[in-house]
Amino acid sequence: MIGKLKEEKVIKDPIHRYIHVQDKLIWALIQTKEMQRLRRVQQLGMTNLTFPTAEHSRFTHSLGVYEIMRRIIATDETASGWQLKAQREEYLLALAAALLHDVGHGPFSHTFEAVFGTDHEAYTKAIIMDETTEVHRVLAQVHADFPLKVSQVIDKSYSNQVIVHLISSQIDADRMDYLLRDAYATGVSYGTFDIERILRVMMPYQNAVVIEAKGMHAVEDYVISRYQMYMQVYFHPVTRSAEVIVNKIFKRAIALHQQGYAFKQEPLLLQAFFEKTEMLNDYLKLDDGVMRYHFLIWQDENDTILSDLCQRFMNRRLFKYCAYNPETDTVFYEQLADAYREIGYNPTYYLQVQSSSDLPYDLYRPGENQRLPINIKQKDGQLVELSVCSPLVKAISGKTKTSVKLYYPDVSELRASAKQKEELHQLVMQHCSNK
Amino acid sequence: MIGKLKEEKVIKDPIHRYIHVQDKLIWALIQTKEMQRLRRVQQLGMTNLTFPTAEHSRFTHSLGVYEIMRRIIATDETASGWQLKAQREEYLLALAAALLHDVGHGPFSHTFEAVFGTDHEAYTKAIIMDETTEVHRVLAQVHADFPLKVSQVIDKSYSNQVIVHLISSQIDADRMDYLLRDAYATGVSYGTFDIERILRVMMPYQNAVVIEAKGMHAVEDYVISRYQMYMQVYFHPVTRSAEVIVNKIFKRAIALHQQGYAFKQEPLLLQAFFEKTEMLNDYLKLDDGVMRYHFLIWQDENDTILSDLCQRFMNRRLFKYCAYNPETDTVFYEQLADAYREIGYNPTYYLQVQSSSDLPYDLYRPGENQRLPINIKQKDGQLVELSVCSPLVKAISGKTKTSVKLYYPDVSELRASAKQKEELHQLVMQHCSNK
Amino acid sequence: MIGKLKEEKVIKDPIHRYIHVQDKLIWALIQTKEMQRLRRVQQLGMTNLTFPTAEHSRFTHSLGVYEIMRRIIATDETASGWQLKAQREEYLLALAAALLHDVGHGPFSHTFEAVFGTDHEAYTKAIIMDETTEVHRVLAQVHADFPLKVSQVIDKSYSNQVIVHLISSQIDADRMDYLLRDAYATGVSYGTFDIERILRVMMPYQNAVVIEAKGMHAVEDYVISRYQMYMQVYFHPVTRSAEVIVNKIFKRAIALHQQGYAFKQEPLLLQAFFEKTEMLNDYLKLDDGVMRYHFLIWQDENDTILSDLCQRFMNRRLFKYCAYNPETDTVFYEQLADAYREIGYNPTYYLQVQSSSDLPYDLYRPGENQRLPINIKQKDGQLVELSVCSPLVKAISGKTKTSVKLYYPDVSELRASAKQKEELHQLVMQHCSNK
Amino acid sequence: MIGKLKEEKVIKDPIHRYIHVQDKLIWALIQTKEMQRLRRVQQLGMTNLTFPTAEHSRFTHSLGVYEIMRRIIATDETASGWQLKAQREEYLLALAAALLHDVGHGPFSHTFEAVFGTDHEAYTKAIIMDETTEVHRVLAQVHADFPLKVSQVIDKSYSNQVIVHLISSQIDADRMDYLLRDAYATGVSYGTFDIERILRVMMPYQNAVVIEAKGMHAVEDYVISRYQMYMQVYFHPVTRSAEVIVNKIFKRAIALHQQGYAFKQEPLLLQAFFEKTEMLNDYLKLDDGVMRYHFLIWQDENDTILSDLCQRFMNRRLFKYCAYNPETDTVFYEQLADAYREIGYNPTYYLQVQSSSDLPYDLYRPGENQRLPINIKQKDGQLVELSVCSPLVKAISGKTKTSVKLYYPDVSELRASAKQKEELHQLVMQHCSNK
Repeated sequence: MIGKLKEEKVIKDPIHRYIHVQDKLIWALIQTKEMQRLRRVQQLGMTNLTFPTAEHSRFTHSLGVYEIMRRIIATDETASGWQLKAQREEYLLALAAALLHDVGHGPFSHTFEAVFGTDHEAYTKAIIMDETTEVHRVLAQVHADFPLKVSQVIDKSYSNQVIVHLISSQIDADRMDYLLRDAYATGVSYGTFDIERILRVMMPYQNAVVIEAKGMHAVEDYVISRYQMYMQVYFHPVTRSAEVIVNKIFKRAIALHQQGYAFKQEPLLLQAFFEKTEMLNDYLKLDDGVMRYHFLIWQDENDTILSDLCQRFMNRRLFKYCAYNPETDTVFYEQLADAYREIGYNPTYYLQVQSSSDLPYDLYRPGENQRLPINIKQKDGQLVELSVCSPLVKAISGKTKTSVKLYYPDVSELRASAKQKEELHQLVMQHCSNK
Repeated sequence: MIGKLKEEKVIKDPIHRYIHVQDKLIWALIQTKEMQRLRRVQQLGMTNLTFPTAEHSRFTHSLGVYEIMRRIIATDETASGWQLKAQREEYLLALAAALLHDVGHGPFSHTFEAVFGTDHEAYTKAIIMDETTEVHRVLAQVHADFPLKVSQVIDKSYSNQVIVHLISSQIDADRMDYLLRDAYATGVSYGTFDIERILRVMMPYQNAVVIEAKGMHAVEDYVISRYQMYMQVYFHPVTRSAEVIVNKIFKRAIALHQQGYAFKQEPLLLQAFFEKTEMLNDYLKLDDGVMRYHFLIWQDENDTILSDLCQRFMNRRLFKYCAYNPETDTVFYEQLADAYREIGYNPTYYLQVQSSSDLPYDLYRPGENQRLPINIKQKDGQLVELSVCSPLVKAISGKTKTSVKLYYPDVSELRASAKQKEELHQLVMQHCSNK
Repeated sequence: MIGKLKEEKVIKDPIHRYIHVQDKLIWALIQTKEMQRLRRVQQLGMTNLTFPTAEHSRFTHSLGVYEIMRRIIATDETASGWQLKAQREEYLLALAAALLHDVGHGPFSHTFEAVFGTDHEAYTKAIIMDETTEVHRVLAQVHADFPLKVSQVIDKSYSNQVIVHLISSQIDADRMDYLLRDAYATGVSYGTFDIERILRVMMPYQNAVVIEAKGMHAVEDYVISRYQMYMQVYFHPVTRSAEVIVNKIFKRAIALHQQGYAFKQEPLLLQAFFEKTEMLNDYLKLDDGVMRYHFLIWQDENDTILSDLCQRFMNRRLFKYCAYNPETDTVFYEQLADAYREIGYNPTYYLQVQSSSDLPYDLYRPGENQRLPINIKQKDGQLVELSVCSPLVKAISGKTKTSVKLYYPDVSELRASAKQKEELHQLVMQHCSNK
Repeated sequence: MIGKLKEEKVIKDPIHRYIHVQDKLIWALIQTKEMQRLRRVQQLGMTNLTFPTAEHSRFTHSLGVYEIMRRIIATDETASGWQLKAQREEYLLALAAALLHDVGHGPFSHTFEAVFGTDHEAYTKAIIMDETTEVHRVLAQVHADFPLKVSQVIDKSYSNQVIVHLISSQIDADRMDYLLRDAYATGVSYGTFDIERILRVMMPYQNAVVIEAKGMHAVEDYVISRYQMYMQVYFHPVTRSAEVIVNKIFKRAIALHQQGYAFKQEPLLLQAFFEKTEMLNDYLKLDDGVMRYHFLIWQDENDTILSDLCQRFMNRRLFKYCAYNPETDTVFYEQLADAYREIGYNPTYYLQVQSSSDLPYDLYRPGENQRLPINIKQKDGQLVELSVCSPLVKAISGKTKTSVKLYYPDVSELRASAKQKEELHQLVMQHCSNK
């Protein structure tokens, strides 16, 4: 398993032209059922309800992260000093960790985790370490300790921090692939940057990855691209709205299960999660199709809240939204909640205040939350943190741009009398018309 | 419903940059649940098992076909003579038919149809004509006869053949979008052609669409692009292999149902199809997620054939293939079938001879099968069929390049003794090694 | 001349796919010899010595600016309120001014102007107003006053400031085309932004052009793109070095002419400029080929300074550079000048301190130098200047990032003894090694 | 000169992203004045008069050919068997020959050669072999015989035919770069093909380069791309028209020189060519700027033929054209020639019959003219020529599609009475109206 393939295999890819697989280990990992499951999990969750062509999977992203890692460390032509190629096991470790870094992601990842308390990074490590998985069995063929090493790279504790940096830092193979790929898939131009140049100016230095001074502007451009993707794509309030609805669906289904509600068809694959008794094997059965299957059949459930929410999600009748100030708007919120109750809508499932800072906000915040900063290596060897030398990056660093919004159903879609709707409409307009 | 939107709406799209929606009718149709269902049906079925990034849906393709149609007929700047814009209803008819042309497609379309005897074009018409659908109700708001007209455009019987040509001919909005979109999604370069130029040289003429002589090479390029996409992408034998497996899964599930087999979980959404009693409403519940949900849970069924086939599909352990000559290779086939039976594999589910000419082969074959030819309008007004004036197109016209292949499981994956595997391997190698 | 062409003409263009010409006036202007001259003037002057593929001309840029203007004002589908289309003469005025805005540019524009005191904007107006030019004669066919109006748009005095803004503001057809075109030609990724989106969010308002609030991020992205292009491409010190040499060549040739030096071949086309007696007709003869022809033959002149400088330019043996602090480095400068004099090199022609703030620095500096600011129109109708609402833009606004550099010949290329070279090398290294 | 650079240098390029230079020899060759001259010679001659953005030089193309060669032979990861990397001198030979293959091209290459009888390949060899050139001196530093070897690769006589094939065959680094580059520069989509795939399926075999069977469709796509580029771009009759005019300008200038005509300014750089006494040094002074300088000043010559033709070229007042049948149209030709003579236009300079088969027609014609065929290596080791296995390629092989056209000035532009023009117009229309 430590050897090379007799003949390099290539997989077509629009971002990197081809994914090149040269090592038996990588080819075997791609074939595992845990990796194949990622074909059935969309990379951007519900973003396709806003940008319809955002339909790509975590599988193709994982191949892309692997390929970027390979290009960084496979080179032997530059003087950049990557010496991983000479150390076969470290080399394979970097490639395997890159390929597997997202293998623990489930469907609608962040929304699912928020409701069910799961953690995709913990699952990634479990898939790597659990002896029943195909991934583990393949990794263990390299060496008995090899799965542990991969797992340590994932949780950033591995001794060779260069590999850790290449997978989890402010500028790593993961982020570089997802920006390019998400931009390509959605069709927006913001995510483009000169990856070839960045690969040329990255170098290992003092057990870390740094950027040569001449590459400062290329990295600046990458940071700005990421900022723009967050502002324009990842934080889009229409996607947030879909997430609110899925969150409410999950919550309602759990509540019904706890009340002993009889579903028309038993949700076999979800019960363990409802009861918080799930095992790795339960988790590995989940994918987007399983979730959507349940939402689909729940459209016909007797519980009107569950069926209504599922119909909304499946047919894209999302909640509206307007700006919300938690300090000054609570009276309005209570008025609205009362009005909803009056016409038979439970605010628990039909109103939601949500802040974008609740989200996995990934802007450039050096030093914080294990996000390793980007250091620029000057000609004299000194390291200067990027936001110190770039006014552009400084402008967007360390600021949590919190945008709080209130999500609510379109009044015209509610089951209520014309008069009730009109009153509700007035109430909403009064608050939201110019926000 | 016949009016314009107050403000044009745009949807981001990487192929056409933006999809522009200006008409209330089109916006309302996009919101129908029948159209939204297409988000959950992949455009290229199982092709993503060969080209992993081929993950796009029939929904985004449908928007693209609509947008191309809009660009063709919305122009008022050229002297090309499209007068649809002046006739509001005909204009909306062309747009609506373009948007809806694929609304009857189900999951794994051609494979599903082959097994269950359904017909996506019939379903498209049913969705348009059935009074219970949202699509019908929206269309009927234009005019009571409007759904019928849309339906006639779909089955090519509508009087204004210009609209029919723009949707179903050798060079239509449908084909132009799917070539560009499939090429973009897979990352292959073959599908590109100069659509802007083609739109400029198309013109209505004698109740048909023709190409001005100066555009001959651009259209030639489009035809060659299509040929290359068929050769390189659509007919790829690995995708065929996945289709063979799905075909076998369906057949096994039907057989089990007919035998009164007790599935661990009743396949509620599929029963009507197993019994050939399906109604439109049953059909509209199907999508890729529903299919994959069943394949997923069937991996744990007691029937070993069904569970094995489902595991193969879900984890991409596809059948191998080699060239097969129906005239000379029948003895080999029988030997192989016997050997399979001997180790407990039923050849009905584990061997398949398949010819690519069984497929919806869409090369340029003027005159055949309602495929309207491409006519080039000479300066003197005469029409010359494309393959007459282009030697390149002539070279690929009217030829059914039948490639027959035998699909079989990888010997090393079978449950059998080492000796049995070795014998089987010899038998296969003897026949397939140099094909 | 005010009418439309019988049939629209198109010109292939990689940036806008096609340039569409629909008006007789525009077609006639493109054919004038003053416009055709721009084919022989490179858009980015000497930048091709740094980015070799930057070989595009001011002619193709001018077509691009025209095309963007056409797309802005030709639309009748949005509610954006451009009413120019209804006013035929204003419409043609906007198109003509866009096409002609650079017609007064000469070869190596800024360098030439710095030495000879010419002004391309004055020449643009002269070409439009002078009755002997083809451009003037074509424009005058619209209306006797029409050339004057075009000229007023160029100098920003025209009453309809919307047209002025569309050609000369912080976000205008000129800048949008050159960023996209220069990025395409050089191959850098920095210059890309979503022009289609920007065209959608621009609108006329209170005799100016403003941006709708929803388009703020798209415009922010455009401003950052421009910043990156300046940092990475336009201000590149290697290009500066080539400009220093051309500047010195011109200065030497003038000095020789003033001394009565006998050139081997009389520089007929340049004499008027040497003597500051040039007329419009003299100016219109100049192009890159004329300049390069003289540099080519001057390589063989007897004057060693002129021949050496021309050989340097033609064969790309440019000056080196290092950072220079005008306050602290004057002693070093004098030492170096003395050392050059000693080995027979006149510092007037072989040393140059240059600051990038001498350049036509076009960053975002609202209010300054007639650069109209970008105003964002809020939902309530208020205008907010871009740098007020964008921290990114604020970060790069109003700051003149002055980078001062000293340019000098590579020591190894000088005609001097080994010992002299070694001493000179030491002197240079001492100062420049870590800058 | 045989060593590697301390640090790899990169040059930005939109086709290959970056040109990578790793060897001292290549860096030194790029700096020679003979290579730098190619910056001043446009790759597609006068094509920019048809496709205005076709402004790229032979210099950037030469860098591209070098880069493709480097990518082919630098790889050590595939099993393809290129062993050049191990043989340092052969490796450098392949790179140097790729970079230098066009160094002997002059301005307006084919037109210039047709009139003056020069030969760019002979000049390429002369530049390599002549001891006075910088190119020669750099090459000779590798080894005294090295220039000769490079020269042998150019004339295809070198013993290692693999290198020859990579530079001059039906599928070589030269053709691959120019198709991609010309398509990029003009903006047409025809020239694109999957170069990365082709590089993967090329392999050395029996002292030649062959294509693995699995790559057949990729190569087919490349051949069709080339065909389309010839049909759409290279053979465009408007470019032909410009070439006719330049041809006539040269002929007139020669005739005047032979008659002892006194040019206003002596054409110093051209005299040797007028008298056929040119030496290498004379040739190396020529570039586009020199030619255009003469055409520019000749606009003001006293000879009306020369000045008129030069004005036509500089201001793009090209000749019209219509189809011409050499067998049936000679009477018409004579009538037209007589009519021209009558109004004072010499048909020698104002009428031209031209056939596109006179051109360097580079379609796929195996076996002919030293154009090495493309052989497909089957699994069993046999070689099959491409047009044998591809019906598409067969359709365009070996056929000289001769298109003969007559070029003549636009009647309306001639100096003649209204009546004369009307008669001439009738004569031309009678013949050309429907061609």
